[in-house]
Amino acid sequence: MTRDHHATATAALSLNTDIGEGYGAWVIADDDALLELVTDANLACGFHASDPDIMRRTCQTARERSVAVGAQVGFRDVLGFGRRFIDVSRSTLTNEVLYQLGALYAFASVEQTPIAFVKVHGALYHAAVQYESYALAIADAVREFDPNLPMLCQPGTSFSRVMANAGLRTIAEGYLDRAYTADGLLVPRGQPGAVITDPETAARRAVQLAVERTVTAIDGTVIDMPVESVCIHSDSPGAPALAAAVRQALEAAGVALRSLAGTTVAAGD
Amino acid sequence: MTRDHHATATAALSLNTDIGEGYGAWVIADDDALLELVTDANLACGFHASDPDIMRRTCQTARERSVAVGAQVGFRDVLGFGRRFIDVSRSTLTNEVLYQLGALYAFASVEQTPIAFVKVHGALYHAAVQYESYALAIADAVREFDPNLPMLCQPGTSFSRVMANAGLRTIAEGYLDRAYTADGLLVPRGQPGAVITDPETAARRAVQLAVERTVTAIDGTVIDMPVESVCIHSDSPGAPALAAAVRQALEAAGVALRSLAGTTVAAGD
Amino acid sequence: MTRDHHATATAALSLNTDIGEGYGAWVIADDDALLELVTDANLACGFHASDPDIMRRTCQTARERSVAVGAQVGFRDVLGFGRRFIDVSRSTLTNEVLYQLGALYAFASVEQTPIAFVKVHGALYHAAVQYESYALAIADAVREFDPNLPMLCQPGTSFSRVMANAGLRTIAEGYLDRAYTADGLLVPRGQPGAVITDPETAARRAVQLAVERTVTAIDGTVIDMPVESVCIHSDSPGAPALAAAVRQALEAAGVALRSLAGTTVAAGD
Amino acid sequence: MTRDHHATATAALSLNTDIGEGYGAWVIADDDALLELVTDANLACGFHASDPDIMRRTCQTARERSVAVGAQVGFRDVLGFGRRFIDVSRSTLTNEVLYQLGALYAFASVEQTPIAFVKVHGALYHAAVQYESYALAIADAVREFDPNLPMLCQPGTSFSRVMANAGLRTIAEGYLDRAYTADGLLVPRGQPGAVITDPETAARRAVQLAVERTVTAIDGTVIDMPVESVCIHSDSPGAPALAAAVRQALEAAGVALRSLAGTTVAAGD
Repeated sequence: MTRDHHATATAALSLNTDIGEGYGAWVIADDDALLELVTDANLACGFHASDPDIMRRTCQTARERSVAVGAQVGFRDVLGFGRRFIDVSRSTLTNEVLYQLGALYAFASVEQTPIAFVKVHGALYHAAVQYESYALAIADAVREFDPNLPMLCQPGTSFSRVMANAGLRTIAEGYLDRAYTADGLLVPRGQPGAVITDPETAARRAVQLAVERTVTAIDGTVIDMPVESVCIHSDSPGAPALAAAVRQALEAAGVALRSLAGTTVAAGD
Repeated sequence: MTRDHHATATAALSLNTDIGEGYGAWVIADDDALLELVTDANLACGFHASDPDIMRRTCQTARERSVAVGAQVGFRDVLGFGRRFIDVSRSTLTNEVLYQLGALYAFASVEQTPIAFVKVHGALYHAAVQYESYALAIADAVREFDPNLPMLCQPGTSFSRVMANAGLRTIAEGYLDRAYTADGLLVPRGQPGAVITDPETAARRAVQLAVERTVTAIDGTVIDMPVESVCIHSDSPGAPALAAAVRQALEAAGVALRSLAGTTVAAGD
Repeated sequence: MTRDHHATATAALSLNTDIGEGYGAWVIADDDALLELVTDANLACGFHASDPDIMRRTCQTARERSVAVGAQVGFRDVLGFGRRFIDVSRSTLTNEVLYQLGALYAFASVEQTPIAFVKVHGALYHAAVQYESYALAIADAVREFDPNLPMLCQPGTSFSRVMANAGLRTIAEGYLDRAYTADGLLVPRGQPGAVITDPETAARRAVQLAVERTVTAIDGTVIDMPVESVCIHSDSPGAPALAAAVRQALEAAGVALRSLAGTTVAAGD
Repeated sequence: MTRDHHATATAALSLNTDIGEGYGAWVIADDDALLELVTDANLACGFHASDPDIMRRTCQTARERSVAVGAQVGFRDVLGFGRRFIDVSRSTLTNEVLYQLGALYAFASVEQTPIAFVKVHGALYHAAVQYESYALAIADAVREFDPNLPMLCQPGTSFSRVMANAGLRTIAEGYLDRAYTADGLLVPRGQPGAVITDPETAARRAVQLAVERTVTAIDGTVIDMPVESVCIHSDSPGAPALAAAVRQALEAAGVALRSLAGTTVAAGD
């Protein structure tokens, strides 16, 4: 497993969530509430969701709240919300990711909240895990655009290895709402216990990840899981409540909330 | 009339043309032929035409041929090719232009051919001439993105004044295929003699614009027309032939072909 | 004012609402709740909102609940939700409306809930009120597709006259959430009292429209307003509650709820 | 191999070609020239190409020239021209095909040139050959919309079998520009001799298919190939010349040119 986190004297954690996934008149998440609670916003770039107004407004709000902005890149498929596999050639995919990075760059630059990281969305992420050419296409785009842009990765995956081999800095990411196997991978959806919805359980797991740097797998094994950021899903009705519970628990445990841009948010902010 | 050209010891002229206006499988102009002949490419950014592959490939070709790349921004209307007015709010329009500038920035940056200027396409240009709010929205976007980016403008228009008042550098642009009135404006399409299609006439006008810095209006009056660039339309079948005739005439007259990025292309290149 | 309602022995009213205005993963209204309460569903056809799955599912649900389905046609502008004016030629607009009617026809036919009427959405409706060429383009499409398809119209408007002159049957439509002037037109939004949000007031107005066939204008004048259908807006959070209050009041007053397809829904259904 | 052709007293053949595959300002084939030469037009329905104006105009022209119109359905992917696989669920695909059939129905109905058949385009066709669920989804849509609509199928393929099993009438289709194996399937592109571009060879093959109802495979074997229609590709520059050569040879051989709507076009028409 890659150990691409930064060692910290005191426990620290980033909370990332998908943001800006509306489209025109449509809203899918309570972005304003979430941006009060997370440290990092994975901002959709207009290919699977979002539009120029949403991107501008989100960058503004993120800066005001010291939330770091990352590029959440996806397939060009608004109607499918980026959740459907599309057979795209490697060079086209590189160019589609570059287009998204550039578009976000404009808003991030104007709103003075530089792109702090990249996260891959939905079916494109799954394709990049499954097909190396997809992962390589994404790695090419990020490296060409800005080789210092780190990539959110689940530790232990082929995706993470491809990104690291491409010379990109990987940020190890954990999941609060998904059970792990003893091998450190996710229990597939559909298996009993795979999905965790209880805010208190999620909060307890967050503290364990931050303080112990471990996770308790579904079979009870405690395994190393040194993640730098944990993902809070945004598009369920209970998302803000879960995020609030996690944040409160982390603050109570003395864990620093630190964005991927390096900003530390003091408890009570 | 604004005099925003740069005085030059020897006569010099830029030839700009719209480029990259295909979409996926569709082609509308012979971009490769045109990029051999012009100094400046107004590259569509995906809103009215173009796509990530076209943008990437065009930036590559432009750099190889020392052609400068400008952002050709338009309404978000691929089906209408940006030729239909859309009622867009000022702030949304600013954000839509920013999105396009950012997207092109990615390819220009990766291909090391920095965005050298901005040109406004089709119905958005007409809207910006007619409604100050549209012109201001565009000016805001360019100024926010990069205040040093110059804007191609027809001298004497309200559009040119708004851009200059906004603090943007304007580049005076002339038209070889359109007749002028004695006031220095374009004879409206539909009036007799408004459109010039003969390559030799166009070439003669180009030399006069470059050497004398004048144009002969439709009534025979010779008027000052100190333009820095002239536009060659790209989407007619005869476009490359006309561009070739213009270029040859300019080179024969000893006019330097100078891109808006400042690159001078020697005759015979 | 046209009197294109059908005289009825007992008072009867249709309740129409905009339906199917989601897009892929996005939802904008509680369609299921509304389809329990209204008699007529103005189903978006994919140009300003909706998609094939939504259209299919809505036709199914509508048939199960004896709700009549109408084609809600709009500008081709998903990102703008059909709320932005687009400069479309008359013949193109006719063809765009035909495309939408045909698309809905497929689902209506497969689900055995024939298209019962047409309603024009958002900015296209405003354009059709303002520019006769837009109204004529729409009338052409409907007449060509099926000359027996009636059109929902606000009585007294130029739109209603153009539709009637084109030989289409017009269905007079009233608004529960908008105040009327003494001339029978709507008080412009932005003027005090223009918008009515209280469910009880809306319900009282519905009963008056159905039983007395009048409306009380903003200055207190009681004017004739013989409408066949009233519109319940769908995209506010309180829409189902307002629809429920209106339906309950109508049923309490003995008003038959009659869809535009002629189906009468018994109280308590 | 299925034998789904209709026996005919005199030799007859339909010539089909893809038509209406422009998009807004973009053109990809010389539709006017092709509609003078073929008997059947596979009209794109707006998902992978075409738009309402093109569909209307093509139906008009087709009717004027007694060319039958078929629905050419594809993936919803204008930028990819329907040439990229998209992972679509079976029910969504059925609804997407229904939407396309309905849209074309509107124009076919208004222009009085009823939809005569269905043809599946590009990557959707390949998916339907590869995955039975895709073929079934398409069959469901056609059967629900109009169970009498026949489907163009390559004989001997799983696609043809699924359509026949679904109760649809299949129309056996041959290819003039592709070599066959001795098993009656296509030699894969990329193998030597797989693609035939010479107009005279294509014409000779057309006559053999029509008169002998056989094809000479790449290894010289003459095999039965009783097709009702042959496909002329439209999007190569030489398409009209090839179509003209084929038509002339068929007419010279006394083969009746018969559209899939049953219209016979006399030689010299």
